[in-house]
Amino acid sequence: MLERIHHLGYAVEDLDAAARFYRDQFGAEIGESEAVEEQGLVAMMLRVGESRIELLQPTRPDSPVGKFLEKRGEGFHHTAFEVEDIEATLRELAGRLDLIDEEPRNGAGGTRTAFVHPKAAFGVLTELVELPRGDRSEVL
Amino acid sequence: MLERIHHLGYAVEDLDAAARFYRDQFGAEIGESEAVEEQGLVAMMLRVGESRIELLQPTRPDSPVGKFLEKRGEGFHHTAFEVEDIEATLRELAGRLDLIDEEPRNGAGGTRTAFVHPKAAFGVLTELVELPRGDRSEVL
Repeated sequence: MLERIHHLGYAVEDLDAAARFYRDQFGAEIGESEAVEEQGLVAMMLRVGESRIELLQPTRPDSPVGKFLEKRGEGFHHTAFEVEDIEATLRELAGRLDLIDEEPRNGAGGTRTAFVHPKAAFGVLTELVELPRGDRSEVL
Repeated sequence: MLERIHHLGYAVEDLDAAARFYRDQFGAEIGESEAVEEQGLVAMMLRVGESRIELLQPTRPDSPVGKFLEKRGEGFHHTAFEVEDIEATLRELAGRLDLIDEEPRNGAGGTRTAFVHPKAAFGVLTELVELPRGDRSEVL
């Protein structure tokens, strides 16, 4: 069911400083930043092998990532796995574990995503991501 | 420099329960557990794409993972990236950022590993892993 790690979300106070760190220390290729207004954050993807690191900086303190930073500080926020068919996956998981999203929501780049509650997944906020069909090269 | 995500370490109270969760809910293929006496833990790898999830259960409360669980609870513990040449990498990073290991230590399956301090890496405990030469298929 889990095809690969699509990305790791890291919560940071300063997106540009964190991106420079991964570029200058580890040679990561940094992308464009993208504002996600409804989540109150700015995100940037760095590619590593078949996966990415998604740096997340809140744009307001009462956003989910803003509250996370206040409570836990900078660091790991979530793991996102690619699944082939998110609706089939959610139907299979419904009733078996505690889902934050019972229906997929629209994510960046035409993806469809849903979160599993961290309490259901041994303390790890876990995202499931389906890539847009016929358009995998764009978002891989 | 970072070739891929080699594994994500997740700290858990009950390795078998966590492994069953990933197998039964997400169809993950679970491996054998391995005791790492000097670290006071038992570990198990689950493969996901080109990466793995490493479940870590402490065998004593005063071990590093035992203390982590007491302080932070279950969840994400570290990200491990594969690098081609760990000694060259450490030489490059030395003096530029705060390393837990300035020399590589021996890891599972003939790997050589070193940790970067989480304070140096925006709150994420970051491991660098070099695979044994000529033996990549065994540990991939």
